[in-house]
Amino acid sequence: MIDRNDLRWSDVEGIFNRASFISHLGIRLIEVGEGRCSIELQTDDRHLQQHGFVHAGVLATLADHAAGGAARSAVPDGFDVITIEFKINFLKPALPGKLAAKARVLRAGKTVAVAETEVFAAETLVAKLTSTLAVIPEK
Amino acid sequence: MIDRNDLRWSDVEGIFNRASFISHLGIRLIEVGEGRCSIELQTDDRHLQQHGFVHAGVLATLADHAAGGAARSAVPDGFDVITIEFKINFLKPALPGKLAAKARVLRAGKTVAVAETEVFAAETLVAKLTSTLAVIPEK
Amino acid sequence: MIDRNDLRWSDVEGIFNRASFISHLGIRLIEVGEGRCSIELQTDDRHLQQHGFVHAGVLATLADHAAGGAARSAVPDGFDVITIEFKINFLKPALPGKLAAKARVLRAGKTVAVAETEVFAAETLVAKLTSTLAVIPEK
Amino acid sequence: MIDRNDLRWSDVEGIFNRASFISHLGIRLIEVGEGRCSIELQTDDRHLQQHGFVHAGVLATLADHAAGGAARSAVPDGFDVITIEFKINFLKPALPGKLAAKARVLRAGKTVAVAETEVFAAETLVAKLTSTLAVIPEK
Repeated sequence: MIDRNDLRWSDVEGIFNRASFISHLGIRLIEVGEGRCSIELQTDDRHLQQHGFVHAGVLATLADHAAGGAARSAVPDGFDVITIEFKINFLKPALPGKLAAKARVLRAGKTVAVAETEVFAAETLVAKLTSTLAVIPEK
Repeated sequence: MIDRNDLRWSDVEGIFNRASFISHLGIRLIEVGEGRCSIELQTDDRHLQQHGFVHAGVLATLADHAAGGAARSAVPDGFDVITIEFKINFLKPALPGKLAAKARVLRAGKTVAVAETEVFAAETLVAKLTSTLAVIPEK
Repeated sequence: MIDRNDLRWSDVEGIFNRASFISHLGIRLIEVGEGRCSIELQTDDRHLQQHGFVHAGVLATLADHAAGGAARSAVPDGFDVITIEFKINFLKPALPGKLAAKARVLRAGKTVAVAETEVFAAETLVAKLTSTLAVIPEK
Repeated sequence: MIDRNDLRWSDVEGIFNRASFISHLGIRLIEVGEGRCSIELQTDDRHLQQHGFVHAGVLATLADHAAGGAARSAVPDGFDVITIEFKINFLKPALPGKLAAKARVLRAGKTVAVAETEVFAAETLVAKLTSTLAVIPEK
C-alpha cells in the first residue's frame, strides 16, 4: 500500500480530482499500491437502470477508472496512462449500495499497460474488466 | 426507420425513460429501425475527463445503450435485452459537443443478441463497441 | 481436483478427444477441478509466427479451450457449453516450449457461463483471456 | 486494391509466408487494399470441433491474421504490426468449406492500430473480431 504522502498517491489522486465525470458520479479513491488501486462508489437513484440495478455504464466507468489508477501507479515518473480499449463482463445484477472496485496491473510496458478490475456489490463479484492503456508522457 | 407511433419505438423509448442514469446523463433517443438505433448526447463539463475530452465512461455508456436499443428493436414482442458483456475501443479523443451513437444488430438469436455501435464526435469516429446481450422475458 | 474416474473428468475429456483441431494441435488435458481446468501444449515449429514466437492463434485456441473445460465442469449433468465470445490480451511474446493454460469459472448461470484463463510460457504470464459461453443441452 | 507488384502486397504477403502456423493451417492471402485485407481458408477435418463445425480457434486465427494484414497495409514503410489484444464474437456455427475473412482498419496511429474483421462461411457472417495492434519498427 502506498502512503498518502507518497508522490504516487497524488499522481493517481490527480486523475480522480481532475476528471469531472468521476467526481460528478461520486467515485472515491480508497487505496493505491504498487500496480494496484481500490476505489468506491456509494450509489443513489441517478446511477440506476430501468430494472432498479446499477447501470452497466456506471460499473464500466468505475472499473475502467480503477484500472487506470493501478496502471498509473506502475509507470515511471513523468508518464501518464490513457485507456485505449476495455472489455467488461457483467456477472450478476449489481444491487444499489456501496460498490468497490479493485484493480491490478497484469503488465506495465514502455508503451502499453494491461490491467484488470473486479467490481463487488456487497461482497458479490458483479463485474470483471480487462483494459489496455497507452503509456504517454505526462502533460 | 420505425415511426414514433410504432410499438417498437415505445419499447425502445421505455429503456431510455426508465433508466435514470441515461436521462441523468442527458442521452436522447433519435431513431429506431429494424435492428438499428441512433442516440445522441450534448456534452457539458460534467462529462469530461482530466484532459478536457469526453470521459471513456460516457462514451461506453452511450455506445452500450445504443446497442441495447438496436437489440431491443430486433427481438420479438414480450422480450427484453440486457447487456452481458461489451468491448469498446477508443479511437480518437472525443471533443466536447454533440456525440452521436449509431448501433446495429449483428445477430438476434433466441437467447443471445450481438450488436455493435459506432460513436461520432463532430463526424469523426471516436469509439467502436461490440456487445453481447441476453434475450430475456419482458417484466 | 477431480479424479480421472469421475464422470466430470470424462465430460471435459470428451471435449478434447472429439475436437480434431485440439488433438491436431497437440493440446493435452492435465487437470479438472470444480470450475477449474488446466491444459498444456508442447509447441513445435508449426505453432510459430513470423518472429519465431508462438502464434497468437495458438495461444487463443489454448486459452479458449481451457475456459471451455472449466465451464464444462461447472454446469449440471446433461449440459454442455459453447463459446459465444472471447477477448484475449497478449502480454509478452511466448517463447516456444511448454505452454500451460489455467482456467477458472467466474460465473456459471443457467444460460450463460463466464470463465477466464491465464497462459504461461516457462512460468511467465504471456496471455489472459475472458470468455462468455452459452450453456446448452448436451447432444 | 493493391497490385501484386506493389511493395505493400509483398509486405503483407511476408506475414503469411513467414508465419508457419498460418501456412500450416492453409490460410491464403486473397487481396490487399489501403487498410483492407481479404484472406481465405478451405477447411478440412483437422479444423473442426466436437460438433463438426469449424473450431473457434481456427476462426479466431483467420480473423486476427486478416486484421494484421489490413493494419500492415496502413502503416508507413519500415513499420510492422503485432496484435496486442483481440475480441471475437461467434455469431453462427461455421459449416466446413471455404471461409472468407475481410478486414479493415478503423484507425492507424503512430503507435497503435485498430482493425476489425468479418468472417463468412458460405456468405453467412459467422464471426466478428476487433483487434488492437502495436505499430513497431520492422526487423
